[in-house]
Amino acid sequence: MSCCHDSDADGAFTVDASRITFGRGCLAEVGDRARALGVTRVALFSDPAVAALAVFDTVARSLRDAGIDVVPYTEVRVEPTDESFRQAATFASETGADGYISVGGGSVIDTAKAANLYATHPADLLEYVNAPVGSASPVPGPLKPHIACPTTSGTGSEVTGIAIFDLLSMHAKTGIASPALRPTEALVDPDSTDTLPASVVACSGLDVLSHALESYTARPYSRRTAPARPSQRPMSQGANPWSDLGCFEALRLLGIYLDRAVADASDREAREQVMWAATLAGIAFGNAGVHLPHAMAYAVAGLVREFRPEGYPDAEPLVPHGMSVILNAPAAFRLTAPTDPGRHLAAAAQLGADVRGAAPEDAGTVLADHLVGIMRTVGMPNGLGGVGYTDTDSPALADGAWPQQRLLGNAPIEVDKPLLDSTFRQSMRYW
Amino acid sequence: MSCCHDSDADGAFTVDASRITFGRGCLAEVGDRARALGVTRVALFSDPAVAALAVFDTVARSLRDAGIDVVPYTEVRVEPTDESFRQAATFASETGADGYISVGGGSVIDTAKAANLYATHPADLLEYVNAPVGSASPVPGPLKPHIACPTTSGTGSEVTGIAIFDLLSMHAKTGIASPALRPTEALVDPDSTDTLPASVVACSGLDVLSHALESYTARPYSRRTAPARPSQRPMSQGANPWSDLGCFEALRLLGIYLDRAVADASDREAREQVMWAATLAGIAFGNAGVHLPHAMAYAVAGLVREFRPEGYPDAEPLVPHGMSVILNAPAAFRLTAPTDPGRHLAAAAQLGADVRGAAPEDAGTVLADHLVGIMRTVGMPNGLGGVGYTDTDSPALADGAWPQQRLLGNAPIEVDKPLLDSTFRQSMRYW
Ligand SMILES: NC(=O)c1ccc[n+]([C@@H]2O[C@H](COP(=O)([O-])OP(=O)(O)OC[C@H]3O[C@@H](n4cnc5c(N)ncnc54)[C@H](O)[C@@H]3O)[C@@H](O)[C@H]2O)c1
Ligand SMILES: NC(=O)c1ccc[n+]([C@@H]2O[C@H](COP(=O)([O-])OP(=O)(O)OC[C@H]3O[C@@H](n4cnc5c(N)ncnc54)[C@H](O)[C@@H]3O)[C@@H](O)[C@H]2O)c1
Ligand SMILES: [Zn+2]
Ligand SMILES: [Zn+2]
Ligand SMILES: [Zn+2]
Ligand SMILES: [Zn+2]
Repeated sequence: MSCCHDSDADGAFTVDASRITFGRGCLAEVGDRARALGVTRVALFSDPAVAALAVFDTVARSLRDAGIDVVPYTEVRVEPTDESFRQAATFASETGADGYISVGGGSVIDTAKAANLYATHPADLLEYVNAPVGSASPVPGPLKPHIACPTTSGTGSEVTGIAIFDLLSMHAKTGIASPALRPTEALVDPDSTDTLPASVVACSGLDVLSHALESYTARPYSRRTAPARPSQRPMSQGANPWSDLGCFEALRLLGIYLDRAVADASDREAREQVMWAATLAGIAFGNAGVHLPHAMAYAVAGLVREFRPEGYPDAEPLVPHGMSVILNAPAAFRLTAPTDPGRHLAAAAQLGADVRGAAPEDAGTVLADHLVGIMRTVGMPNGLGGVGYTDTDSPALADGAWPQQRLLGNAPIEVDKPLLDSTFRQSMRYW
Repeated sequence: MSCCHDSDADGAFTVDASRITFGRGCLAEVGDRARALGVTRVALFSDPAVAALAVFDTVARSLRDAGIDVVPYTEVRVEPTDESFRQAATFASETGADGYISVGGGSVIDTAKAANLYATHPADLLEYVNAPVGSASPVPGPLKPHIACPTTSGTGSEVTGIAIFDLLSMHAKTGIASPALRPTEALVDPDSTDTLPASVVACSGLDVLSHALESYTARPYSRRTAPARPSQRPMSQGANPWSDLGCFEALRLLGIYLDRAVADASDREAREQVMWAATLAGIAFGNAGVHLPHAMAYAVAGLVREFRPEGYPDAEPLVPHGMSVILNAPAAFRLTAPTDPGRHLAAAAQLGADVRGAAPEDAGTVLADHLVGIMRTVGMPNGLGGVGYTDTDSPALADGAWPQQRLLGNAPIEVDKPLLDSTFRQSMRYW
């Protein structure tokens, strides 16, 4: 927040958020809210597993009770691909819906965003995808109203302008980033977490943890070059006082509640608080951006060979997003800690680490060790080795992460390919 | 956040905020941002004093440089009235503007909101005004884009859906409350506080302090009766985890920086942090609501006889909004403290009070005494007596506050007229 008029650095930050409703039972509000948005016929997105849960019926019934036509699409692929995005977009183009509802985790919400985008502003899939993989064309106008109902705790996708997918031909994850993609409203109902398998609570909870940690340690907004037009300031604008606040509280809540939420599905207080942390971290990272662990994760997920985790669909090998992120986190934060030891120590303390007597040069070790402890408690694999990678994969992983320039540029350190390579090697095994 | 399915109480809360840009120099972004909103001809609102400052030129120039037609209206009345709202609305109807820009304090921003409302959806002034004074008709649709540029630190009006005015015929302040009134964007530039007189920093800073304290101690959302339609959940929905976060940080910042910001116009760090606190408290109270001190303030301001404070226009007697609020605060919080001593003590601690060893039954005294200390430091009058009231005025003041049912219902205690009367009497003199 210091004065920067005289350099090329940006002197301001811009924050944006969806309308958010949070509370037990709030999914029953969806019909009334859709009607208040003027919607008459919705495309209702879900994945096959969530579509079989009571939560899906609650939403469908509320919509129908409000007199809204409901056209369900329950074929969303968990960890979506370009192919699954295209199928969803084709469906959306054909339904004539004037609104979108998503009920599910990040996979479902992201798919609904993409379907809404390509049905509203038809284009080749790569048109709006982030450079250098896609053309990164700006979204030409607003999308149709979208009410996102997250059922994991969770990506925060319900409040971000981001949609992520796996580009099969490149074996790499990439995405679309535009404020236009941000859902119109989010309905966050902790009741829906009752049915989550422990492994999904763990993976999505560690995704939340890394959203908060990465946003909190991202290069400060005031050290990013100002955009040519201020109205084009990126969502990945770096750490700022607004995102700091949400990150800090999310870290505190996760330090208290994450292990309880994983260990005991009947601990409703813990699951509710982790969901609130997910919402806060989503708002924060949607206005600050993530960096190294996420950039690396896209390669980890994209190059998966054999891994099939518990609690996820087993049709195809996959590394769940949160797992693919957290496996890089201890190595990555050891690297970034010297840029701001105070922040890294404060974050560790919020997560429950004992930081008494820690010197600035201990910050990386203190934070990394505490993260490793949390990973072990909630049952993560022992580093990238645990999901099938070896040191010989590190060059391919580095190549896979390299296109994530939007995220790498948001790290507090300069990142080149050799550094990515060595950080992947540091992430192979933690205990 | 507990489960409340079985009662009439509301189980969820809804939060909303404008797009906010914060940082030194950001007023120069207004032209680009207005253009990005599709605006071609703006009504530019200010008051005569602010219109003479460089800040006004900065905004006008940025708009013109972006190729936007600018029609200035610099006759905003400080502490607006029904009459001044009507004049502004007439101006707005005649300009054919497709967008609104406000540069000034809450008086200017509120006037631009009202002008936008009545020019877009013409009606009798009382049509949209809160009951029981007005008909409280819902705003029939969206307004034109409005970019609010606050120059005080400050009401938070740039992020709320509220516009306040003095209804001259009733000698009472009242207002309009609708999400539709929330400005499309806020540009918060700490540079503009350089020219603020100390008394305006004090009054508007104490307004911020009370926004944060009242929202933090408001009746929790989970104890309010659920609305008939969830999409009509009121903005004054009570304390909730989202507003708590902003309030708590705002109180911390005010505890450190408010007296510095008042004492020394060249203390740019302090003025910047108070402005950030104002923004946070605005977001918070826009999603939680204020209660007793504000309800009482509307009578204090409305019934003013002779008082003419330093630093404000002296054409008419007036009690500045923040002063009219804070004069009731110590007495009001002494009353509400027993409902939640922990919260009242935590708030006092954030403001810098020493709360070690304080028992729950001390909470009201600890908080009230600390507030009185702050009021003395920044030069507030000694209670309502200091702005010309005596004990014989308390019945009229209670009658004047009674119509503020929207706010009184948001207090954590039941409030009737005798209680208002006695609280006004408790507010007459503090030292
Ligand atoms: N858009 C963003 O801002 C953003 C941010 C982070 C991650 N993501 C993306 O989100 C995806 C991951 O999303 P996720 O972690 O929410 O999980 P997910 O949507 O992939 O779902 C994980 C598994 O949990 C199941 N599930 C979901 N809700 C359930 C419930 N209530 N009860 C029982 N089972 C349930 C699903 O069927 C699935 O098998 C990835 O593709 C990732 O890249 C997007
Ligand atoms: N809408 C809301 O949510 C909300 C909330 C709180 C208060 N209010 C209303 O806002 C009004 C009070 O607004 P306020 O406290 O911001 O003050 P204000 O707009 O009344 O301005 C106070 C004085 O400061 C001067 N001023 C403003 N900016 C200046 C600058 N940068 N340099 C020098 N002088 C400057 C003005 O000319 C005026 O004389 C009241 O009417 C109150 O009821 C509205
Ligand atoms: Zn400057
Ligand atoms: Zn993530
Ligand atoms: Zn319940
Ligand atoms: Zn106020």
